Amino acid sequence: MRLNEMTWPEVGTYAGKTVAVLPLAAIEQHGPHLAVSTDASIVDALARRAETSLPNEIVLCPPMPFGSSHHHLAFPGTMSLSAELFTRVVVELVQSLIKGGFHRIVLLNGHGGNITPIKQALAILSHQFDASIPANIVLVTYWELAGKVFAGAPPMESPALSHACEYETSLMLHLYPEMVHREQVQRAQSPASNGYIPWEEDEPYRGVALFKKTQFISSNGSSGEPQKGTAEKGKILFDQAVASLCQFLSEFKKWPMLEDLRNQSI
Amino acid sequence: MRLNEMTWPEVGTYAGKTVAVLPLAAIEQHGPHLAVSTDASIVDALARRAETSLPNEIVLCPPMPFGSSHHHLAFPGTMSLSAELFTRVVVELVQSLIKGGFHRIVLLNGHGGNITPIKQALAILSHQFDASIPANIVLVTYWELAGKVFAGAPPMESPALSHACEYETSLMLHLYPEMVHREQVQRAQSPASNGYIPWEEDEPYRGVALFKKTQFISSNGSSGEPQKGTAEKGKILFDQAVASLCQFLSEFKKWPMLEDLRNQSI
Amino acid sequence: MRLNEMTWPEVGTYAGKTVAVLPLAAIEQHGPHLAVSTDASIVDALARRAETSLPNEIVLCPPMPFGSSHHHLAFPGTMSLSAELFTRVVVELVQSLIKGGFHRIVLLNGHGGNITPIKQALAILSHQFDASIPANIVLVTYWELAGKVFAGAPPMESPALSHACEYETSLMLHLYPEMVHREQVQRAQSPASNGYIPWEEDEPYRGVALFKKTQFISSNGSSGEPQKGTAEKGKILFDQAVASLCQFLSEFKKWPMLEDLRNQSI
Amino acid sequence: MRLNEMTWPEVGTYAGKTVAVLPLAAIEQHGPHLAVSTDASIVDALARRAETSLPNEIVLCPPMPFGSSHHHLAFPGTMSLSAELFTRVVVELVQSLIKGGFHRIVLLNGHGGNITPIKQALAILSHQFDASIPANIVLVTYWELAGKVFAGAPPMESPALSHACEYETSLMLHLYPEMVHREQVQRAQSPASNGYIPWEEDEPYRGVALFKKTQFISSNGSSGEPQKGTAEKGKILFDQAVASLCQFLSEFKKWPMLEDLRNQSI
Amino acid sequence: MRLNEMTWPEVGTYAGKTVAVLPLAAIEQHGPHLAVSTDASIVDALARRAETSLPNEIVLCPPMPFGSSHHHLAFPGTMSLSAELFTRVVVELVQSLIKGGFHRIVLLNGHGGNITPIKQALAILSHQFDASIPANIVLVTYWELAGKVFAGAPPMESPALSHACEYETSLMLHLYPEMVHREQVQRAQSPASNGYIPWEEDEPYRGVALFKKTQFISSNGSSGEPQKGTAEKGKILFDQAVASLCQFLSEFKKWPMLEDLRNQSI
Amino acid sequence: MRLNEMTWPEVGTYAGKTVAVLPLAAIEQHGPHLAVSTDASIVDALARRAETSLPNEIVLCPPMPFGSSHHHLAFPGTMSLSAELFTRVVVELVQSLIKGGFHRIVLLNGHGGNITPIKQALAILSHQFDASIPANIVLVTYWELAGKVFAGAPPMESPALSHACEYETSLMLHLYPEMVHREQVQRAQSPASNGYIPWEEDEPYRGVALFKKTQFISSNGSSGEPQKGTAEKGKILFDQAVASLCQFLSEFKKWPMLEDLRNQSI
Repeated sequence: MRLNEMTWPEVGTYAGKTVAVLPLAAIEQHGPHLAVSTDASIVDALARRAETSLPNEIVLCPPMPFGSSHHHLAFPGTMSLSAELFTRVVVELVQSLIKGGFHRIVLLNGHGGNITPIKQALAILSHQFDASIPANIVLVTYWELAGKVFAGAPPMESPALSHACEYETSLMLHLYPEMVHREQVQRAQSPASNGYIPWEEDEPYRGVALFKKTQFISSNGSSGEPQKGTAEKGKILFDQAVASLCQFLSEFKKWPMLEDLRNQSI
Repeated sequence: MRLNEMTWPEVGTYAGKTVAVLPLAAIEQHGPHLAVSTDASIVDALARRAETSLPNEIVLCPPMPFGSSHHHLAFPGTMSLSAELFTRVVVELVQSLIKGGFHRIVLLNGHGGNITPIKQALAILSHQFDASIPANIVLVTYWELAGKVFAGAPPMESPALSHACEYETSLMLHLYPEMVHREQVQRAQSPASNGYIPWEEDEPYRGVALFKKTQFISSNGSSGEPQKGTAEKGKILFDQAVASLCQFLSEFKKWPMLEDLRNQSI
Repeated sequence: MRLNEMTWPEVGTYAGKTVAVLPLAAIEQHGPHLAVSTDASIVDALARRAETSLPNEIVLCPPMPFGSSHHHLAFPGTMSLSAELFTRVVVELVQSLIKGGFHRIVLLNGHGGNITPIKQALAILSHQFDASIPANIVLVTYWELAGKVFAGAPPMESPALSHACEYETSLMLHLYPEMVHREQVQRAQSPASNGYIPWEEDEPYRGVALFKKTQFISSNGSSGEPQKGTAEKGKILFDQAVASLCQFLSEFKKWPMLEDLRNQSI
Repeated sequence: MRLNEMTWPEVGTYAGKTVAVLPLAAIEQHGPHLAVSTDASIVDALARRAETSLPNEIVLCPPMPFGSSHHHLAFPGTMSLSAELFTRVVVELVQSLIKGGFHRIVLLNGHGGNITPIKQALAILSHQFDASIPANIVLVTYWELAGKVFAGAPPMESPALSHACEYETSLMLHLYPEMVHREQVQRAQSPASNGYIPWEEDEPYRGVALFKKTQFISSNGSSGEPQKGTAEKGKILFDQAVASLCQFLSEFKKWPMLEDLRNQSI
Repeated sequence: MRLNEMTWPEVGTYAGKTVAVLPLAAIEQHGPHLAVSTDASIVDALARRAETSLPNEIVLCPPMPFGSSHHHLAFPGTMSLSAELFTRVVVELVQSLIKGGFHRIVLLNGHGGNITPIKQALAILSHQFDASIPANIVLVTYWELAGKVFAGAPPMESPALSHACEYETSLMLHLYPEMVHREQVQRAQSPASNGYIPWEEDEPYRGVALFKKTQFISSNGSSGEPQKGTAEKGKILFDQAVASLCQFLSEFKKWPMLEDLRNQSI
Repeated sequence: MRLNEMTWPEVGTYAGKTVAVLPLAAIEQHGPHLAVSTDASIVDALARRAETSLPNEIVLCPPMPFGSSHHHLAFPGTMSLSAELFTRVVVELVQSLIKGGFHRIVLLNGHGGNITPIKQALAILSHQFDASIPANIVLVTYWELAGKVFAGAPPMESPALSHACEYETSLMLHLYPEMVHREQVQRAQSPASNGYIPWEEDEPYRGVALFKKTQFISSNGSSGEPQKGTAEKGKILFDQAVASLCQFLSEFKKWPMLEDLRNQSI
């Protein structure tokens, strides 16, 4: 079901029995070759497909199109909420869903820059609700859920999803080819490797995090190897993302609510 | 043009020459007969039509689906940001557009509860930018712009647009009939008139404002006379809304930037 | 009664039986000819007169002299709280009154720039109190309450109250002539009309709101036609403002508390 | 001069040459015998007298009637801003004065509960302005400025000013006897001494601060020995307060702006 | 006991029976001759000594090393939280202690700049807890508690403790001589006296507070007469500080919880 | 060098030439067998060892003992700042260091709950400084930096570091055996696996994050297999943590500042 199309009595009827899925996207520059809606378009397509597959299990909320993308603001077309503000937006949208009767909520994320502010929101929500309202609220970032094919398994050639890269370019070629300017695809210049920070996707996380505005790590706003993107790869990626998401949602719906374990031991 | 479909270099090329239009909507209960996306659906349709009419004049941003609807939270399906938070969201989205090069920005509003927080945002933005960046940033609420037909002129029978009323029901019957449950249309109970507060639409504003959660002024979440809505009325309303918006946008694009007038007098 | 002159046991005795009236004013430039206390002086005179007429019905709180006037800060003598801060001040003052036992509260406003932040405060207070404490809290802006004479009815010559205009000049000539520098009265330069924005008072609201600092819309800080102000007009305006306010207060005192209507229908 | 009565060009002319005096008061319970405006009434009388004495030296701003009195909220008639909010209000009012051209600003305080939030504001303002705008901004609490007569010197009998005490009762009997209910004067019950905390005025500060809501330290809202108040004592107190304030203001007007001393040494 | 060394069941066992002592320090410049940890080092030594003397009475929390020192930020090595942020930190640390079962909490302060923000925190905590949780939460600034020897009594030569002065230099020479660069001791230049503001320690508080960044009142970051510091003086100061603190803690542990006194009178 | 022991001129001399290392810890329950200072004690030992190894390369700041541990607040002894507040604390401490002249800053983290709020802080700092001040500011979480031995490589038996687990117990047995109550070591009860969420350490991250207060996922506050901890394992872990940190710091000191790459391409 799509929340958008339901009346309030309908939502009231189904809230307690279904999983609310709230897509969290971003409108931000994606290099010279991809539309600024890339993150929003992909996560929207993914969420709609999942809803089609599990129409009675989930209530699909309208996507939040704007995410936390302040690091891209030097590039036009980026519409961003600061990290702290985005955290608060997520908190209040989840509060609304809980107030409306949902106890199982999936924040379906399609933008790397959203991960930290959403986790910050989960900490706030946990402190607010755990002691009083049983609820399972999870953050799911689609490419992390989908597994190895988003981390360099064939047919992918570059080692991991980054930004406006082989992965996202492939997904857009598969889903919305009209939003890809293939002639503009260009591998960006990026800083020399220091062995710790994965400016692009070719170095693993080694326990060191550095946060820099995009113009300091990419000459054109893209990362990775967008020139290797193809629609065929995109189909494989998307199908796997859909399958892993549907699999997760089916299981998540059955997760029990957690109990206070202190009574059982001390 | 639609910002969603543009790359960042394209946005950079057009930002200074066009009007950015940012639709501000709401996801909230609309009585037992209308979908919770009513406000979002209407303003989205309106914005898309305007963009089709003036493709080279405006850059249509993705709509912000969630608005300030805390007064409706007692009804499921409402997804709301508090007034103060929504104000901050509007401020940061406009900051993003200005950072991206836009100097003419229209906040196209489709929800009454958004008006105050958006005006609060305009005051903040004025204080922040007026002294340094010339920009024309306006709030346009579509039914206020469209004039008499939204205020009781025939064929409309009730005196003014309120909420889930004759007007909105008509618009939805015209635009998205599948989202209207005609069999559920029911005039709500509301408080007795006190001569000052327009609980519904049948009393004019008399200089007194009172703010109450919806459950205190409507028994089912709707206001006005939804039973009088028809698709024919909806077409008239929508066409007039489109026409007045397009007229405004064409003129707004030509408004000059204002100058500090103190130099001219004292 | 005046709260200022009461002891706490006296306030405790009367709070539940009376209407608290809290005047909200502003200290801000009013052109070259009016004192910066114009808004505060007028609303104070009005509130005192109402208290004299209805001594047993209302408890008059001390006026909050400072309002939200950041748009006037380029002119000396303006003492302003930002819109967001003024909202919070209104929220806490109303919280104090409710804590003290008042259930009927009138925010008597005398400054246009306060309207939006007060409405923002009402939304916050509604969310905070509606579900638990029955209370009627209203915003009354005196010139909107007083009706046609404040909107161009004879003897007034200009179509509406704006700022340091025919209306306010007349009121000050009637109430505090020593605070009017008649020799300094001068119609300001303002931007050319664009048909939508009422830079002064001579164009009606057409659904478009734009917020600019005063120096961009007035060369000397005044608006409208202050040169047309007279003490005689001021008396007519003030008497009507008093009458309409007293009429309202008498009725407001009898308004019932609203009830949750959901029980009655679904 | 009184800012209230000046036009903006007048303020502009005098701001740089005068001292702005902003009285900061409180509306809060003052026991069963004093009006809730006690703090506001006293500081207002004091400020007006100083302005009368030094008409060309100071610009007297309208008093901020509401202070930080949350500890008194259990007693009706208290209208309070929380400490953090009051701090922000002071910050923005001072910002307004600086923006208007004042460089010498006196925050004339009449309420003990305001001292901490005003000092917090001074720290914020120092961080904001010191490096860029030369200004002398001071907090003056009138009874601390006035010296020994406010600390137990004859004719006063109790050792120090506290709240609704011998001192404030005396001042009110002198200035506004109609606001004193002599028949209600009653020494309150208070906690037993622990040797460190001056519940009332009879123990000196010993380096330990504890903050409790008034109802835990006074049975009727007053402190000290209000029954010892007389109008004669009030006159002595008030005259000394006026004299010390005028003396200070005359000197303060001549204080030089401070300079960065680092250049002179290292 | 030291909280640092306890397990959570141990803290749970002792929280209700002991006094929690939380040292609040600062890391900030202390002139050319003292280490930036001076405030932290002194208060840490003091707290440890008290814990050694009263091992079963108190639970010593780890010191908060960073305080509110924005006025010193022009000097390297200062690590500061703004006044408003430090207030919030104190609030949440006390909330944690109360949540953990402590009802007697001493905020042992070692930095003058912390006093105002801590008092601001106490006001917030009082408003939050007084009505529901009985607790005694006090601010103790060690040199104010210790009495005359910190205010000019022999052997001290300068009249009061200020900053990086005779007193702090003496304490450091006694406690951590290796952190004193005796050859760098130099009396700073400071502004000329105006008779009201104690730039250093040689003028008493006269009811006027002014807050300026350190570089405007000291040429090298120190105040007072550090050249008069000796280890012998330091021993006397420290011993007295320890004695007065232990005396206070022993008594504080026995203070009863306060009761609402309104029931007893009106 | 240790900042604590330096004077401000010394810090000024070395800030631009060295790496500032700021340890970020936590005071929170660590099961029935470990002291609440476990995270603080470990990261402090690590930082001191690194400073001893690289005395001329780094300036070691005093550790911030308190972290973001609200999820542990149901267990006494936890002293926590909320996630949003801890973010702000990190922001201001880094601002202080930058103001003091440091351009290379390492946030050395020893608590899992700090990771999200520190990343949130990095995003804020990037937005604030990137365009104006070249600086490299990194988050280093010691066990993520140290590599495989902290992820199940022999001699470790459980697959990953969690909380009060084999890893932390081993480190404490090596570093501070007096703070380990071996007789209290007990494997906690935890929820049944759902295949996605690593309640303890025995399931890998699969793209789904859920945040729950500790009492819902552990019956005694510990996680993993603390009973497998030994001092010998602790030595291996600690030595590797020190080695990897020193290696990183040596390289980090040489990292160049990043440049805006846009100039090079478009």
